Amino acid sequence: MSETAISETVIEVCRRAREASAATRELTTQVKDRALVAIADAIDAARESLQAANALDVEAARAAGTSATLIDRLTLTDRRITGMTSAIRTVRDLPDPVGQVVDGWSRPNGIHIDQVREPLGVVAVIYEARPNVTAEVAALCLKSGNAAVLRGSSIAMHTNVAIADVITEALRGLDDVPDDAVQLIRDASRDAALELLHADEYIDLLVPRGGPGLIATVRENATVPTVIDGDGNCHVYVDASADLAMATDIVVNGKTSRPSVCNAVETLLVHEDLADEWLPKVLDELQGLGVEVRGDVRTRQVWPSAAEAQDSDWSTEYLDLILAVRVVSGLDEALAHINRYGTRNAEGIVAQDIAVAQRFARAIDSGSVFVNTSTRYSDGGEFGYGVEIGVSTQKLHSRGPMGLQSLTCVKNVVWGSGQIRVL
Amino acid sequence: MSETAISETVIEVCRRAREASAATRELTTQVKDRALVAIADAIDAARESLQAANALDVEAARAAGTSATLIDRLTLTDRRITGMTSAIRTVRDLPDPVGQVVDGWSRPNGIHIDQVREPLGVVAVIYEARPNVTAEVAALCLKSGNAAVLRGSSIAMHTNVAIADVITEALRGLDDVPDDAVQLIRDASRDAALELLHADEYIDLLVPRGGPGLIATVRENATVPTVIDGDGNCHVYVDASADLAMATDIVVNGKTSRPSVCNAVETLLVHEDLADEWLPKVLDELQGLGVEVRGDVRTRQVWPSAAEAQDSDWSTEYLDLILAVRVVSGLDEALAHINRYGTRNAEGIVAQDIAVAQRFARAIDSGSVFVNTSTRYSDGGEFGYGVEIGVSTQKLHSRGPMGLQSLTCVKNVVWGSGQIRVL
Repeated sequence: MSETAISETVIEVCRRAREASAATRELTTQVKDRALVAIADAIDAARESLQAANALDVEAARAAGTSATLIDRLTLTDRRITGMTSAIRTVRDLPDPVGQVVDGWSRPNGIHIDQVREPLGVVAVIYEARPNVTAEVAALCLKSGNAAVLRGSSIAMHTNVAIADVITEALRGLDDVPDDAVQLIRDASRDAALELLHADEYIDLLVPRGGPGLIATVRENATVPTVIDGDGNCHVYVDASADLAMATDIVVNGKTSRPSVCNAVETLLVHEDLADEWLPKVLDELQGLGVEVRGDVRTRQVWPSAAEAQDSDWSTEYLDLILAVRVVSGLDEALAHINRYGTRNAEGIVAQDIAVAQRFARAIDSGSVFVNTSTRYSDGGEFGYGVEIGVSTQKLHSRGPMGLQSLTCVKNVVWGSGQIRVL
Repeated sequence: MSETAISETVIEVCRRAREASAATRELTTQVKDRALVAIADAIDAARESLQAANALDVEAARAAGTSATLIDRLTLTDRRITGMTSAIRTVRDLPDPVGQVVDGWSRPNGIHIDQVREPLGVVAVIYEARPNVTAEVAALCLKSGNAAVLRGSSIAMHTNVAIADVITEALRGLDDVPDDAVQLIRDASRDAALELLHADEYIDLLVPRGGPGLIATVRENATVPTVIDGDGNCHVYVDASADLAMATDIVVNGKTSRPSVCNAVETLLVHEDLADEWLPKVLDELQGLGVEVRGDVRTRQVWPSAAEAQDSDWSTEYLDLILAVRVVSGLDEALAHINRYGTRNAEGIVAQDIAVAQRFARAIDSGSVFVNTSTRYSDGGEFGYGVEIGVSTQKLHSRGPMGLQSLTCVKNVVWGSGQIRVL
């Protein structure tokens, strides 16, 4: 990609972040934590002006006939501002990943290799309506020693600009932290977004946070390194050895506690030994909670209210109160089904037979496996990562829920005392 | 990418590997090691037929007027066959990365998270003339529990087919290992290579091993995940605090021991305090070893035989007996120079001042940093990885020399006892 293909605006923003990143990578934890406190305090102090800016966005969105759901996400209530500042303080309290020695060993010639975690450099995040992401991502990037390039949606532009200005102003008040550590792209055009996707010289990692449309655009266009938060067609396999009360809890929790998220269960696979007695009972309970069931032939034999599952049902992420159900002959058939239809995000098993549980844990080719617990725990907060960056469905770099560590890489630091390679 | 865009041949090869990978991921270390021994023994036993196949390639290459260097790389001498089998036995002796628990912790609700290393799935490698890569890569992939898709160059096709057939035959003789674990693409066309670059559904990682042309093709076209072994414009900074005898050794070793490789030194940065006395001496010594020096103004003042360095010299990976030399005011200027012109591969420092050495080690944004030792150690073998896959110049997934671990990813295995998420 030649430089001329990138507009001056986006390039300038990225270049400022790149320059700042040379300084942010060396900041001590103390200095970074002080910066986060300064930002949280500044946001607290700027509540009124932030809400005034947000009112402009909300008004324009209403005039444009934006949906109530989207306007709700866009609105910066007092409670959400408090949520933002408390998220920043949570990030401050997390351990600093930078400097962590991941591995280390000496070689026969006396050189010693340390593998040390360090900041990636410049992290870019593209996100949608919710303006609180602006502050949360800025905090995550700073804490991990990165400079940030933020690209929110046009619908939240006034709010995002106001938040970014408060952050920059707060950083100006600190001697040690570069003022340009957090950059907002103020050009809301699609072209500007595409230019960011091609700013290979300046961006070390791009994380898209948003719906399938955004993810598809990033997949098709990005030449910068990305970590993708993709689909979650999650399965639960209930083995013949399962504790049946536990199985019921886990299936019901997985399907009904929050059906719209990527860690909700979409397909239930049941061992044939459980088809006659347990399966009809759990389906009755799910139906009582409003769940529509789409079953295979065997399921419909034992529970005739089920609709007939089509092949497409096995690969659909419903994100709704719908459950596909299939009776399998055992673990192998369950694994083959998941291998064929899954999206490699999160899968669960309920089993008391340790051999079955261990083999499932080993054989499943997904980011996370849940043994005798709910797939709903596939979440950065539930993993203990504090503020979540997303859930990676790729295998390289990060897999599953992503925390601060996902914003770092590992460097080989080799210490010697004059060794040279003879060869 | 629709399936119709991928030819039946390449797709069939990739699909067979994908199917085999479901079995290879579960193989125990014992079984994998047995497979490697079987392959090494089979290659030993097939020396004559391998060399006969190789003779066809060499003859055709000679007839086509191929360069002597390339014909040398292509030729499968008896010694190289022994090299191949001993590389396979080296890989057998390496620790199995699969099953390694990278991290693990319990959450307040009692769930326990283990982060466990596991095979990526299907690893594809595109490589050039040297047919011994076929067997070495097959061994690395098998040991790490992956299925392999290999794509050598047309010039070595007879040899590669013969080696792949020996491997498959050896695997057929084992009960536990899928026969299709190692697949060779037998279509030497550019189209077949491009199809492999787009086989997203089947390939978990592609590693291109070869020259700048191959790397550029992969960078521009691949939609499958890749790890790139890129340029090595390596620097050594000699600080005022350096042990000068050590500095001379490290600079001379870095530049002259093997100038054609990516860990050779291309630019020497010297603290101004050393410009008058030490610098001319080391440049004399380098000149005596046939090195051409291109210096900045200050260098040419103290050592007039130096040619004038152009701006392009600072960003050139010579891979030859040429050295760019610049006198800097100190660490900051050295870091700024490396940050501006470097390729983020490997950089060295010679310094006795611990503060200078530590800051360099922290601030450098490259895969590896060498403190008081030669950048020539940036190498999988020297790091203790046995057979090398390459040296990654990217930040995500793997950075620096790559061993078996680079062919694995980490899965979150969450153990519970019935916990569900109430929210």
